Amino acid sequence: MSVNSFGRLFRFTTWGESHGPAIGAVVDGCPPGLAIDEGAIQPFLDARRPGQSKFTTQRQEPDQVRILSGVFEGPDGVQRTTGTPVSLMIENVDQRSKDYSDVAKAYRPGHADYAYDAKYGFRDYRGGGRSSARETASRVAAGAVARLVIPEVTILAYVSEIGGHAIDRANFDPAEIGNNPFFCPDAKAAARWEEIVGETRKAGSSIGAVVECVATGVPAGWGAPLYGKLDADLAAAMMSINAVKGVEIGDGFAAARLSGEQNADPMRPGANGPQFDANHAGGIAGGISTGQPVTCRVAFKPTSSILTPQPTVTRDGEATELFTKGRHDPCVGIRGVPVVEAMMALVLADHKLLHRGQCG
Amino acid sequence: MSVNSFGRLFRFTTWGESHGPAIGAVVDGCPPGLAIDEGAIQPFLDARRPGQSKFTTQRQEPDQVRILSGVFEGPDGVQRTTGTPVSLMIENVDQRSKDYSDVAKAYRPGHADYAYDAKYGFRDYRGGGRSSARETASRVAAGAVARLVIPEVTILAYVSEIGGHAIDRANFDPAEIGNNPFFCPDAKAAARWEEIVGETRKAGSSIGAVVECVATGVPAGWGAPLYGKLDADLAAAMMSINAVKGVEIGDGFAAARLSGEQNADPMRPGANGPQFDANHAGGIAGGISTGQPVTCRVAFKPTSSILTPQPTVTRDGEATELFTKGRHDPCVGIRGVPVVEAMMALVLADHKLLHRGQCG
Amino acid sequence: MSVNSFGRLFRFTTWGESHGPAIGAVVDGCPPGLAIDEGAIQPFLDARRPGQSKFTTQRQEPDQVRILSGVFEGPDGVQRTTGTPVSLMIENVDQRSKDYSDVAKAYRPGHADYAYDAKYGFRDYRGGGRSSARETASRVAAGAVARLVIPEVTILAYVSEIGGHAIDRANFDPAEIGNNPFFCPDAKAAARWEEIVGETRKAGSSIGAVVECVATGVPAGWGAPLYGKLDADLAAAMMSINAVKGVEIGDGFAAARLSGEQNADPMRPGANGPQFDANHAGGIAGGISTGQPVTCRVAFKPTSSILTPQPTVTRDGEATELFTKGRHDPCVGIRGVPVVEAMMALVLADHKLLHRGQCG
Amino acid sequence: MSVNSFGRLFRFTTWGESHGPAIGAVVDGCPPGLAIDEGAIQPFLDARRPGQSKFTTQRQEPDQVRILSGVFEGPDGVQRTTGTPVSLMIENVDQRSKDYSDVAKAYRPGHADYAYDAKYGFRDYRGGGRSSARETASRVAAGAVARLVIPEVTILAYVSEIGGHAIDRANFDPAEIGNNPFFCPDAKAAARWEEIVGETRKAGSSIGAVVECVATGVPAGWGAPLYGKLDADLAAAMMSINAVKGVEIGDGFAAARLSGEQNADPMRPGANGPQFDANHAGGIAGGISTGQPVTCRVAFKPTSSILTPQPTVTRDGEATELFTKGRHDPCVGIRGVPVVEAMMALVLADHKLLHRGQCG
Repeated sequence: MSVNSFGRLFRFTTWGESHGPAIGAVVDGCPPGLAIDEGAIQPFLDARRPGQSKFTTQRQEPDQVRILSGVFEGPDGVQRTTGTPVSLMIENVDQRSKDYSDVAKAYRPGHADYAYDAKYGFRDYRGGGRSSARETASRVAAGAVARLVIPEVTILAYVSEIGGHAIDRANFDPAEIGNNPFFCPDAKAAARWEEIVGETRKAGSSIGAVVECVATGVPAGWGAPLYGKLDADLAAAMMSINAVKGVEIGDGFAAARLSGEQNADPMRPGANGPQFDANHAGGIAGGISTGQPVTCRVAFKPTSSILTPQPTVTRDGEATELFTKGRHDPCVGIRGVPVVEAMMALVLADHKLLHRGQCG
Repeated sequence: MSVNSFGRLFRFTTWGESHGPAIGAVVDGCPPGLAIDEGAIQPFLDARRPGQSKFTTQRQEPDQVRILSGVFEGPDGVQRTTGTPVSLMIENVDQRSKDYSDVAKAYRPGHADYAYDAKYGFRDYRGGGRSSARETASRVAAGAVARLVIPEVTILAYVSEIGGHAIDRANFDPAEIGNNPFFCPDAKAAARWEEIVGETRKAGSSIGAVVECVATGVPAGWGAPLYGKLDADLAAAMMSINAVKGVEIGDGFAAARLSGEQNADPMRPGANGPQFDANHAGGIAGGISTGQPVTCRVAFKPTSSILTPQPTVTRDGEATELFTKGRHDPCVGIRGVPVVEAMMALVLADHKLLHRGQCG
Repeated sequence: MSVNSFGRLFRFTTWGESHGPAIGAVVDGCPPGLAIDEGAIQPFLDARRPGQSKFTTQRQEPDQVRILSGVFEGPDGVQRTTGTPVSLMIENVDQRSKDYSDVAKAYRPGHADYAYDAKYGFRDYRGGGRSSARETASRVAAGAVARLVIPEVTILAYVSEIGGHAIDRANFDPAEIGNNPFFCPDAKAAARWEEIVGETRKAGSSIGAVVECVATGVPAGWGAPLYGKLDADLAAAMMSINAVKGVEIGDGFAAARLSGEQNADPMRPGANGPQFDANHAGGIAGGISTGQPVTCRVAFKPTSSILTPQPTVTRDGEATELFTKGRHDPCVGIRGVPVVEAMMALVLADHKLLHRGQCG
Repeated sequence: MSVNSFGRLFRFTTWGESHGPAIGAVVDGCPPGLAIDEGAIQPFLDARRPGQSKFTTQRQEPDQVRILSGVFEGPDGVQRTTGTPVSLMIENVDQRSKDYSDVAKAYRPGHADYAYDAKYGFRDYRGGGRSSARETASRVAAGAVARLVIPEVTILAYVSEIGGHAIDRANFDPAEIGNNPFFCPDAKAAARWEEIVGETRKAGSSIGAVVECVATGVPAGWGAPLYGKLDADLAAAMMSINAVKGVEIGDGFAAARLSGEQNADPMRPGANGPQFDANHAGGIAGGISTGQPVTCRVAFKPTSSILTPQPTVTRDGEATELFTKGRHDPCVGIRGVPVVEAMMALVLADHKLLHRGQCG
């Protein structure tokens, strides 16, 4: 029931704050015998790592992960999971020493500062403490372990929209995603975004984004009615990511504007189960996968850390103004891509084990 | 870890199928001493009840709830909760006996039929079995109990859009919601919807809708980082409702199109904590309530039960066609309103208790 | 996290009070396809049923179970589980109307009366309310469903000791268990107990007992380190039964008096895995089954409902005395036998599914 | 649902193996504002630390705990919990490099070796891996945090019996517990045990023990019916400790030999609630605390690591013999004392928060 844990059979718990000595995750329920070492995790952390382009925060973190438990090197020299908890730790390195007296005294609007204080009455305000997006590194590390559980599944996420400027589906090329700093599958859109995000950055402003994620290879039958629905779990997983304000499965809100005929996913006989003429449902029906690609869209708000001063209040209830000094993330949605992929992997790994347990 | 349960401290479990003898919910974790009887639950079930207008399914269910446990009449003659599980039962009455041989043999496209069969290999196909929207009556009953836990909160949901036709915010009048069969707060929009849904019904088609929900009176401090975020729980709760494909908190996907300045919620000193100039965040920051109204929007797809035959496959993998005979729900989103309210109440009640437990 | 639920993948929730209209259980996580009807459950309830001999309480309850959900009759005419929640209900019939004014005002010593009032401040005092052993009927019903999940396992429980008078292991005959009203496997001991319990009953007194339970056929590998240990789960399961004050696995407290050599369970090669020379461990090592019989012993205290008046206090803090009028259970441990068996089945079913989920 | 986690609201997860780089615990649900630093935890680890007398294993571990998250130094210079997860890490130092080829090939009888292999098919056999009693250091660290949550409670555990040699209650003196290497409250018994355990050690044998634990100051009302009973949780908590085979609450198995009159706990009016004439119940009725001291007894088996060779089988199913070389723990129950105290603290802290959440 821990509020810092997620999952049922494949379950992870994260810990750590932005400016503490380290952050980490404990992954429990990982099946035994999976080949694993730091090299299986590091590439995903590298993809999420800040400071890699001028379009993300300049905090410099090597984000080197260490596996502290749950693995053992077998006689064949391959290190594998043993079925016991996999403890992952990432040291914080670049906790820039700076003056936090302003955020100690007043609440940054749009941030979790006031809400945390209202709840706990005592908080680590340095860099947002536990509410910092730094925590998502732990998710990405745990997600890399989850991927080992579901080798049959391929997960692909990308940014589909920045500040309302969407990709052109006609230009969609997965190979482009790694060619630009935006995880953008449309080369033309990437060029345009470079301009838009560049201007946003220079203005000390920020901008929202939409991330899409597609998981192919998910067999029919994963998921569970009714409060363990695959889509309900995905919605919780995605909404728990910092700055996320909306989640859609399949056509999402667009489906609310369709008729039953337009939204139909007709089926026809296929070699390996039914073939579908369309995938408005996003690969999930009744909370259970249909064998089609599982698709979701995730809305990231613009970060509230901007240069323009905003009216706010102090802890003592006085009026004041705050603006963000120093490091700045003009479009947090960009670095959300590896996080969205990780959450998709974590939910799917959990449901694979759950299905196997209950349905044999 | 039950997949048919929801909540942490205030936790409910539902059971029952569309055509079984009854459905119900067991509500656990309800604080003792709350005045309760069937009369505190029935009005909410009545609001959700089918067959009340020609715009919803014609299934006739009295939906009379019985409280089977967890209550006791005190010396003052008032029946109250005792802190033990509250078992609620609603008998199924109108399970129309009909010929199910077609749905027994083939999968209705867009429904959970194929997914359930892929998962379980054996299913109750009558009326959708467990995947029927009939289950939502159990949620509404449980939600009525949840409301008793949070008397400080007022929850209001309504349909804001049908088939892409939105209400006009200038016409918003909560008093209108009960005056039309659409839970519509805009009298003019309701008139228009009557036409649209009427035509949809006559055509044997269906149409999607968007439901909005606002909870006022939620104090700052409910919710929990990071996988027990109030918004993550709301997302899971809403996405678990039949036919829901999208959830937004506050501005949702619109926030992804804004700049940080546009999306700001500046704070100013107020009599009872900060006052906010705006509520783009939907009353939640860092997963914790801010004291502003908690708002969400929920997208309902058009039901897949339509008169137009759709290509599909039989259990044996043969091509066939199916269309929906008999009772028909042209816009399932309408009856989603009391369900959305119930899920909001259930999530908030849980977080109130959780906050009290952990933060005293 | 419900405190009225038990289990992880195979999970049940019970509800109901001694004098409410009914009691019941919702069993979630039951695999699909298991043949089931009321006839698969009723015999176990019949074994637990009160009023069957003069040595148990005279409350007359038919304890007829109804299955309200989670099952469906397939084309072969056999009713099977569908994988959705199985709701079980048992109506209360013999809630003898009597005067409860004394227990409403004062706390019966040794009962849960004072503790419940201290916790909840409001309670159903009729027949002990939720704390009544009547709740164990729900467990027995749920346990009968659990047995269907583990057909490879045979569970046998019996009374091994009443009031300090133990069976003679040399006389142990499982066939005797059904031949006497004490679930006693030793005919001579049964004769002696008839005298002892008979005198206890006439004196309006009560007496404690020890129940032993052996599960054979449990394969090696069920269970889980470290807080999901098979023995830890069994300990919780047994200790949650009314009147239980102690649990032992294998040799239990006797092992605390042995040396390592005496307590050893040496292994030798066998046709199907290791053969063990002894079973001091009770079939569990490191929280995981070894393939040997899983054994436990459960201590039942004498019920506190006796004719001899006991000093106590009223709700208002005044001194008074209470004694038990009416129906009386001289040795509650006897009716504990079917309950202990049920809890063993419930724990094992859960761990079978858990093992399958996590280890494939 | 993690099997490596325990607790509901106050919940901890442990990780780590005997011979990995470190072990640790993540404590979630800790209320904010509690003064904490390593100094609040270290003394409890020191009490459990091996190698402190010749009567426990000679493994030398400094067991220095580090707090990695969940704390913050306030303006008053006092470090306090923030309500976010407290991550605790203890490095393994003395993983003596030795030849493990024998335990890699064959199963040590009485240990978890075979059971782990049957479950996982792949295991870290060095020093018992995850099944090593080394894990209990994580519990003790977590338990120290739990104590901060329940300042009103005093917990005292001690060894009451070694190899069948019990303390004399007439000699009971809590001040003696720290004066001998056995946590023995009876100076005379300690002298005798020195001889017994000394001989056991020299003989390369081992011996069982009983640990008693008493928690005073627990108010009436903590605990929860029916599967969250305080005693059921204690039973699970204690049975999950390495080498434990039995748990008793209050009189335990002795109660099974008493009559209802002998086992009665009569109540009389007192200044702060009822006063009890006796405490056969161990401070718990119906799963809820009564305000009396909460008492339990825990049986530790003799460790299976002895010098006398025992018949066993290899992984390939061949007959062989194994005996324990090197470091040796003649009576594991001794070092169980701080662990039993920790588990008591963890269960009580959880129930304090649970009670506060559900009953306000």
